[in-house]
Amino acid sequence: MTDLRQIQAIIARETEALSFPQHPCDLYDPIRYTLGLGGKRMRPALVVLSCLGVGGKLEDALKPALGVEVFHNFTLLHDDIMDDAPLRRNKATVHAKWNANIAILSGDVMFAEAFRLISEAPGHVLKRVIDVFLKAAIEVCEGQQWDMDFELRSDVSIDEYLNMIRMKTAVLLGASLELGALCGGADNETASKLYAFGTNLGIAFQLQDDLLDVYGDPDKFGKRVGGDIVSNKKTYLKLKALELADNEARKALEQWYASKDFDELNKVNSVRALFDDLNIRHETEQMMDQFFLEALQNLEAITFDAVYKNELIHMAAALMQRES
Amino acid sequence: MTDLRQIQAIIARETEALSFPQHPCDLYDPIRYTLGLGGKRMRPALVVLSCLGVGGKLEDALKPALGVEVFHNFTLLHDDIMDDAPLRRNKATVHAKWNANIAILSGDVMFAEAFRLISEAPGHVLKRVIDVFLKAAIEVCEGQQWDMDFELRSDVSIDEYLNMIRMKTAVLLGASLELGALCGGADNETASKLYAFGTNLGIAFQLQDDLLDVYGDPDKFGKRVGGDIVSNKKTYLKLKALELADNEARKALEQWYASKDFDELNKVNSVRALFDDLNIRHETEQMMDQFFLEALQNLEAITFDAVYKNELIHMAAALMQRES
Repeated sequence: MTDLRQIQAIIARETEALSFPQHPCDLYDPIRYTLGLGGKRMRPALVVLSCLGVGGKLEDALKPALGVEVFHNFTLLHDDIMDDAPLRRNKATVHAKWNANIAILSGDVMFAEAFRLISEAPGHVLKRVIDVFLKAAIEVCEGQQWDMDFELRSDVSIDEYLNMIRMKTAVLLGASLELGALCGGADNETASKLYAFGTNLGIAFQLQDDLLDVYGDPDKFGKRVGGDIVSNKKTYLKLKALELADNEARKALEQWYASKDFDELNKVNSVRALFDDLNIRHETEQMMDQFFLEALQNLEAITFDAVYKNELIHMAAALMQRES
Repeated sequence: MTDLRQIQAIIARETEALSFPQHPCDLYDPIRYTLGLGGKRMRPALVVLSCLGVGGKLEDALKPALGVEVFHNFTLLHDDIMDDAPLRRNKATVHAKWNANIAILSGDVMFAEAFRLISEAPGHVLKRVIDVFLKAAIEVCEGQQWDMDFELRSDVSIDEYLNMIRMKTAVLLGASLELGALCGGADNETASKLYAFGTNLGIAFQLQDDLLDVYGDPDKFGKRVGGDIVSNKKTYLKLKALELADNEARKALEQWYASKDFDELNKVNSVRALFDDLNIRHETEQMMDQFFLEALQNLEAITFDAVYKNELIHMAAALMQRES
């Protein structure tokens, strides 16, 4: 097995095959529902790829890979309560379909199930795998808290923002690769480099997500273009624009972000025009490229099966929409 | 060190010494606050006693003991959101003092921290300790879900009720003893017997809690006597009364439980009188004794340092208010 698609097919099958008790149904139905919503299963695929690439076997990493996927879905479930999000992958979120209490408690059980799967890592690396997983798990929570804090603050720096997206999004990609490598028998240095690769890639990916909100092709980008502008979300683009703007441009930006009564299309186009004046697209692409290139350098530096290294590079390129 | 009080003092000191980052403060202040609310620290004391009793050393079990305490406090934190409880140990609950989102997320981090501490168990028993912990953790969540389900149901059987309190309250006491024993090097049979001891004791303790609500000395019982009757809570006493009542008595009970407009004292006294007619106090004490005696038999059956066995018996007796 060498192909990312084959790995993803195995992951999809095994995720579906995870079995939970029938009762109490208000505890376990939401878990089945959440795991059945699909998704690219990218994190578990990274765990397995990383394990194979350092010379390990699929079965060394499969259960921990599923654990990472269950954990990721747990974080989405609890985040959706906190953000009061009605939809996830175009379906009702758990707290909307059931209620907040059920979403809290079934999330807690998912977290426990994630631990259980992670703890199926090979015994001789179990403690290290748990440490890597928990460090990331705690940072993901910290990232979510910073994200909520930033909504209420007007003085968020770009460094703070980059650190927040690193924690909230990127470290779990890094940890997926690191713990997969540990399961496969890698030395600590290789595992750390893979962590750095995943984390840098994750930051680049999140910056791209910010960029696509403003400059994406509406047909390809899954969300409504300009949604972040409409909702005044602090993104790299917004923070960079506020940093680079002269007094006049800053005033214009701040007026748009403060206005309560506006035409959405007008606001999106006006803010985008201000971004254009400040060359924000290019600024963001530069930052994105910096993280993406650093990720590739992290990967270059390690001894890793060439076939799987190629898969990782392809996957990274596909994520960054760089494939021809 | 042989004395339960000394062990509890060490646990209290080590719990206070647990350190968490300063930032994000809305994530970690609630954790410091929750762990600072005090409590008897009974579960970690059981972990340590059990480890010492099977011949282990304090340091083999100390971190996992703290993990159980952090986990227990995490469940209280999330349960308080679900029950919308304003107070915990006479102080504002986290969701009341901060908000529900902060309570959800800081609870999640506490769960991760609990797991981190559990995973400090000695390497050669790590997997078994994790399995014991997670089985209990998942059952505690299941117990909470059953408890919430039962509020909406009118057909809860006594067996279902006993199973609910076993999961929600008792298994964590059992698991504390079992994982402490494993940390101390016990064989599986000894560890299982200690689990049974703790679980049976926990059920007896919860039945006593139900009993004290109705028949407790108001000066000694921490809560308002009759609170369960006023709030129509399904307790062993209520379910047993409904089981034993003839048509007339059942009708009277159901009327009280259905009435919206009542004098609290009148309701408590009337329901208690109906309980008296049905000999519910004696029925409950019998069931309680059955679990308590079974617990003591579980303990008798194992090889365990006599001094620590004595401590466990004293502790159990004190819990059941049986000490002269």
